Amino acid sequence: MEGLKVLEKREKKVVEIKNTKVGKGHFLFCAGPCAVESREVMEEIASYLKDTPVNLLRGGAFKPRTSPYSFQGLGEEGLKILKEISDKLNIPFVSEVTDTKYVEVVGRYADCFQIGSRNMSSFELLKEVGKTGKPVLLKRGMSATVEEFLNAAEYILNEGNENIILCERGIRSFDPAFRNVLDLNAVAYLKEKTFLPVIVDPSHGTGRRDIVEKLALAAIAAGADGLIVETHPYPEKALSDGFQSLNREEFISLAEKVKSLASVFKYEI
Amino acid sequence: MEGLKVLEKREKKVVEIKNTKVGKGHFLFCAGPCAVESREVMEEIASYLKDTPVNLLRGGAFKPRTSPYSFQGLGEEGLKILKEISDKLNIPFVSEVTDTKYVEVVGRYADCFQIGSRNMSSFELLKEVGKTGKPVLLKRGMSATVEEFLNAAEYILNEGNENIILCERGIRSFDPAFRNVLDLNAVAYLKEKTFLPVIVDPSHGTGRRDIVEKLALAAIAAGADGLIVETHPYPEKALSDGFQSLNREEFISLAEKVKSLASVFKYEI
Amino acid sequence: MEGLKVLEKREKKVVEIKNTKVGKGHFLFCAGPCAVESREVMEEIASYLKDTPVNLLRGGAFKPRTSPYSFQGLGEEGLKILKEISDKLNIPFVSEVTDTKYVEVVGRYADCFQIGSRNMSSFELLKEVGKTGKPVLLKRGMSATVEEFLNAAEYILNEGNENIILCERGIRSFDPAFRNVLDLNAVAYLKEKTFLPVIVDPSHGTGRRDIVEKLALAAIAAGADGLIVETHPYPEKALSDGFQSLNREEFISLAEKVKSLASVFKYEI
Amino acid sequence: MEGLKVLEKREKKVVEIKNTKVGKGHFLFCAGPCAVESREVMEEIASYLKDTPVNLLRGGAFKPRTSPYSFQGLGEEGLKILKEISDKLNIPFVSEVTDTKYVEVVGRYADCFQIGSRNMSSFELLKEVGKTGKPVLLKRGMSATVEEFLNAAEYILNEGNENIILCERGIRSFDPAFRNVLDLNAVAYLKEKTFLPVIVDPSHGTGRRDIVEKLALAAIAAGADGLIVETHPYPEKALSDGFQSLNREEFISLAEKVKSLASVFKYEI
Repeated sequence: MEGLKVLEKREKKVVEIKNTKVGKGHFLFCAGPCAVESREVMEEIASYLKDTPVNLLRGGAFKPRTSPYSFQGLGEEGLKILKEISDKLNIPFVSEVTDTKYVEVVGRYADCFQIGSRNMSSFELLKEVGKTGKPVLLKRGMSATVEEFLNAAEYILNEGNENIILCERGIRSFDPAFRNVLDLNAVAYLKEKTFLPVIVDPSHGTGRRDIVEKLALAAIAAGADGLIVETHPYPEKALSDGFQSLNREEFISLAEKVKSLASVFKYEI
Repeated sequence: MEGLKVLEKREKKVVEIKNTKVGKGHFLFCAGPCAVESREVMEEIASYLKDTPVNLLRGGAFKPRTSPYSFQGLGEEGLKILKEISDKLNIPFVSEVTDTKYVEVVGRYADCFQIGSRNMSSFELLKEVGKTGKPVLLKRGMSATVEEFLNAAEYILNEGNENIILCERGIRSFDPAFRNVLDLNAVAYLKEKTFLPVIVDPSHGTGRRDIVEKLALAAIAAGADGLIVETHPYPEKALSDGFQSLNREEFISLAEKVKSLASVFKYEI
Repeated sequence: MEGLKVLEKREKKVVEIKNTKVGKGHFLFCAGPCAVESREVMEEIASYLKDTPVNLLRGGAFKPRTSPYSFQGLGEEGLKILKEISDKLNIPFVSEVTDTKYVEVVGRYADCFQIGSRNMSSFELLKEVGKTGKPVLLKRGMSATVEEFLNAAEYILNEGNENIILCERGIRSFDPAFRNVLDLNAVAYLKEKTFLPVIVDPSHGTGRRDIVEKLALAAIAAGADGLIVETHPYPEKALSDGFQSLNREEFISLAEKVKSLASVFKYEI
Repeated sequence: MEGLKVLEKREKKVVEIKNTKVGKGHFLFCAGPCAVESREVMEEIASYLKDTPVNLLRGGAFKPRTSPYSFQGLGEEGLKILKEISDKLNIPFVSEVTDTKYVEVVGRYADCFQIGSRNMSSFELLKEVGKTGKPVLLKRGMSATVEEFLNAAEYILNEGNENIILCERGIRSFDPAFRNVLDLNAVAYLKEKTFLPVIVDPSHGTGRRDIVEKLALAAIAAGADGLIVETHPYPEKALSDGFQSLNREEFISLAEKVKSLASVFKYEI
């Protein structure tokens, strides 16, 4: 890995997504549903996010789904809804881009691109979001080594775009008890070795609503610069990932504990 | 997985790539370098492929590389060279397409699309190659479950394209002894459950030149309908994957044994 | 791994278990139930094994079970039954030893010790079976690297016992489609690097009755010196591992194909 | 997993190891070298442990080593040294037992048995330590599922011994960046589902000295009831596991942070 820009010894980077900052003590607290399903659901989510320290909204409009017969997202319509809600909450939003042909439309609405786990090695896509200069939330592939993850970031950096947020979201293991195993070793390691902010997704990282909160707190203690958490007012009715989404009450409880522990670790939140 | 077209009980499919057939007793023997490096090297490879039962040429023109600083392929120039050599040998050729924006150019030259391991879950790309109707050699993701692999094929089928060849190419494991672990369980299982031809890549599936031949033979015994093998006249000088490429002599030895064992199993080769 | 006796370049070892040989062209065909359940069932199994080339009987008397509430085996009574049946068939038998305190009793009856996957790193047990000088069928741990497997063999060799048969039996993976993934890469590699015979267990290596035969054949093509296969007259009633045991008819079919393919590869069987 | 005693809904268990308690708010802080090498080294370690909240000494006397040629531990002599140092520090000690034949001797000296990762499925050993009634620190197998881990504990419980401390110590993954991946999902899950105390080994769980502290803190935030940490005055000279052992200075820094964060979470330490 010698020679990678991402490993250069330099001052830690603060990534700015409009009025939200992450890195060097600035804590990113990103939340929202897995997929945008309708304006009504998004407004209901907004109604409880507004009283929390959430500073980045998330929501999928273009969804990469294992089955072609699963809900594939609302597309541009979903981006419009996200934009509205984000404006109302006065916080920016991030949304996933799954193919080079959607870079333009996602970039037209979203304040930050998300490159999902399944696309971490879609190198053309990495180059294209790199070229936009816009912030990129880069998720680790579900069985990418740390070295491969760093090289994926390098594809973006190499286009002159340093606005990268690395996101650990769990890796695939032999144990059916969990959808993924959250790899906090990687978080501590990436914080030590790179100058980029590193955040954690405890929703995908566990795949179980009942332990999301505990792992969110663990991520903070491991040194994460932020969290990205799935929430839905009615998880049991969600069109995707309901089993790992926190409901209103659970999310508010999480937000309080996150705020409290992040303060112990001297984060601005 | 209920309801997948790929699991329908029906007659086994024969996929035709120009004058080459695979499935239902027709054996696909695909070979060539990892990447097209130059016309000279391709001609040297052709000089020994022509005396073997190889009936599909392979070669990468658009290469997905872990590092942005590795050789990225010759692009369209590489496709032109492949076309020439393929015409000379009078066999079709397959080449990888790594992004939707390259579907047109790869489709203009190649007789068959390859979807590589890193792109098995690039669903937009699957849809686009599905729409072309052209044969698709679909490689299993390096940590895709069999269920995910079948769903990736379903994305192509769902566009009305049945010309799909499934390819097992090794999965990621905990053991550093091998680049990947060739999963012949999956080959036997896929042959049992689907109507599509299934082939094996023992080069990526082992990552070690010294055991490629043994695993190629094992694949035939496990029921594979074909093989895809990397060869290079000077593996030690290859710009990618030299450690798993067979040289001229090794390849000729492999070809003889493959022919002989495929005959034992009553394949046309 | 430098300096390991198991990697010394020397003539391939033929291990002799009474009148049965394995290695250097001698094929080991071992079969029997997962666990000895009763004399009646064993006699029924013997009634169809006697017409096959099976030359080593298997059966568990001391069973390592994940749950303390599962059937734990008949103990010494099971060994007595195995001894009787083995005498009747005039072939030796192998049985698992799970703890140093059972080495004496298993050794009193069995012609070969089996060290199971869960005990591959029970180093005291390896030393004790090493000291007996009796043949040892050493199964690879379910997530042991090849290097760890070789070191386990080294513990036995280091006690002066060279009568070791290495057995690949599948490794743990992320894919719930199979109980284990049979790693034939390891078989080809171990045959290349060590002087010991290497056999394959396609029953545990797949965990699915419907693909055992295909993987048994693949193992032969990969260079295995033998097979160990589970069979039970009524798999659906078996006290353990029924889902991967072949019934009488399936086993006879397997035996014919094994004999035929082993002959193609010039094995004595 | 229905019917397991270990999953019964009942009051959380406090395990007492002489004057040290763990569970229900009592924090276990266990530290010491990987292996006991000499009285001198142990005394040097004691000299800095005595000023920390460490309340359980650790040290291996019978060492399970991958290679038969690695240092195998001092045996009974090591236990005597541990006993002396433990008396001097007025805290109990834990030491690993690797075979049923050593249960008596380890039990004669140690205040708590350790069952190591390689022996989690040595069921005879689990039964024997179960019968002693003495506390058992049970480490998760390096590729044991949570279900297998719970069943291993059940073997001990089933002998009437409830003095069990579950220990997560990292699982095997595909990523060579770390010796193991610390699975804090499992910690949160086990705390939720069982009545037993759960501790974490960040030394084996990372295999890298530079991130041990971060993961120790993460473990506390995830809900762990304690930690077990390797320390050695001269890690670079240690006979085993030096790469993951903290030196005096690093350990003292860790101890302060652990104390501080455990207090935030209301643990008695």
